[in-house]
Amino acid sequence: MTGIKVHGNTLSTAAARVLATLYEKDLEFELVPIDMRAGEHKTEAFLALNPFGQVPAFEDGDLQLFESRAITQYIAHEYAPKGTPLIFPDSKKMAILSVWTEVEAQKFDPAASKLTFELAIKPMLGLVTDFAVVEEFEAKLGIVLDVYETRLGRSKYLGGDCFSLADLHHLPTTHYLMGTQTKKLFECRPNVSAWVADITARPAWKKIVAMRNTH
Amino acid sequence: MTGIKVHGNTLSTAAARVLATLYEKDLEFELVPIDMRAGEHKTEAFLALNPFGQVPAFEDGDLQLFESRAITQYIAHEYAPKGTPLIFPDSKKMAILSVWTEVEAQKFDPAASKLTFELAIKPMLGLVTDFAVVEEFEAKLGIVLDVYETRLGRSKYLGGDCFSLADLHHLPTTHYLMGTQTKKLFECRPNVSAWVADITARPAWKKIVAMRNTH
Repeated sequence: MTGIKVHGNTLSTAAARVLATLYEKDLEFELVPIDMRAGEHKTEAFLALNPFGQVPAFEDGDLQLFESRAITQYIAHEYAPKGTPLIFPDSKKMAILSVWTEVEAQKFDPAASKLTFELAIKPMLGLVTDFAVVEEFEAKLGIVLDVYETRLGRSKYLGGDCFSLADLHHLPTTHYLMGTQTKKLFECRPNVSAWVADITARPAWKKIVAMRNTH
Repeated sequence: MTGIKVHGNTLSTAAARVLATLYEKDLEFELVPIDMRAGEHKTEAFLALNPFGQVPAFEDGDLQLFESRAITQYIAHEYAPKGTPLIFPDSKKMAILSVWTEVEAQKFDPAASKLTFELAIKPMLGLVTDFAVVEEFEAKLGIVLDVYETRLGRSKYLGGDCFSLADLHHLPTTHYLMGTQTKKLFECRPNVSAWVADITARPAWKKIVAMRNTH
């Protein structure tokens, strides 16, 4: 046992990003479910782990972390020899990988998260989708995916020749969106479409989908 | 000469983030001005450096990068022995630092950038500030700064005991906001206020302010 604990649940895109990383690295961990409907993420005990009151929170022995992309980076570096590498030892290749993790965080996620909320989360909660918002953010996502289409014509994966954190970070929102009308934005771009098929077929990701389906 | 080139200008918050890092590291570089009013960031030559058509773009020999936070990370790692460390060699301390660079990118910057645009950039461009937007994002920034106030009561800097990338990434937007009404949100929190005074007084940052004033 490594003493790793993830506080959160598989339906959270941020928690799923961390879980996918742990499965890729073949690490044992304990998933501590947080009942967000009961407001458990706003309790004093949880706020001590993440002062923003959001899942996931993460522990590895006495180290406590939050922010999903900081957690995935820690896991990839700390457990570098285990499982899928996810990062590159060469500093220049690693810099290119970082460009694309930043693109995910700064360009892809703001649009993809908004669309995930409107088209996947709201229907689950019985709320009404705002299609004006959908139209606005589909246009923004399209611009990002145009850049990805070109990039993926030159490089098999976003971060380089191998699957890495730069690809993995996209999985949770992309998986939700492939079950919505926004799927068309991925499917109409051949390189993007092949990349989505590749990364969503990874065994580590399939474990999370299976966990979600039994939720 | 290291062969470092930054394409951008000091008024851009993202370019200023990279320039502050280069000054902290005592690295020589060439600043290649991009005339954004003339649309130079949308030319084919610039899009080859950054497909999103935004400043900065960065070159170090044959390595080409974009996304300011990926560039600062590259500089801090590649030139680790030069100037201010900005990152920590211990993997657990580095993980904590990464939490706070992610907090800047995911929580602080979305609010701070919106307020910078409304209160600092729009007046420069002769556009009208939308005070409903200001109110909304000042409320969001206040929540982030409450977390910072607690954090900075326990740790001299956000990322740990020493000034690091986690602090540096805040400088460009914070500097703009200290010249606006939003200054009060920083000043009414004693730990945040002392931290802002400390980080904005760094010689590396003062060089950028001086460059801006002679722009």
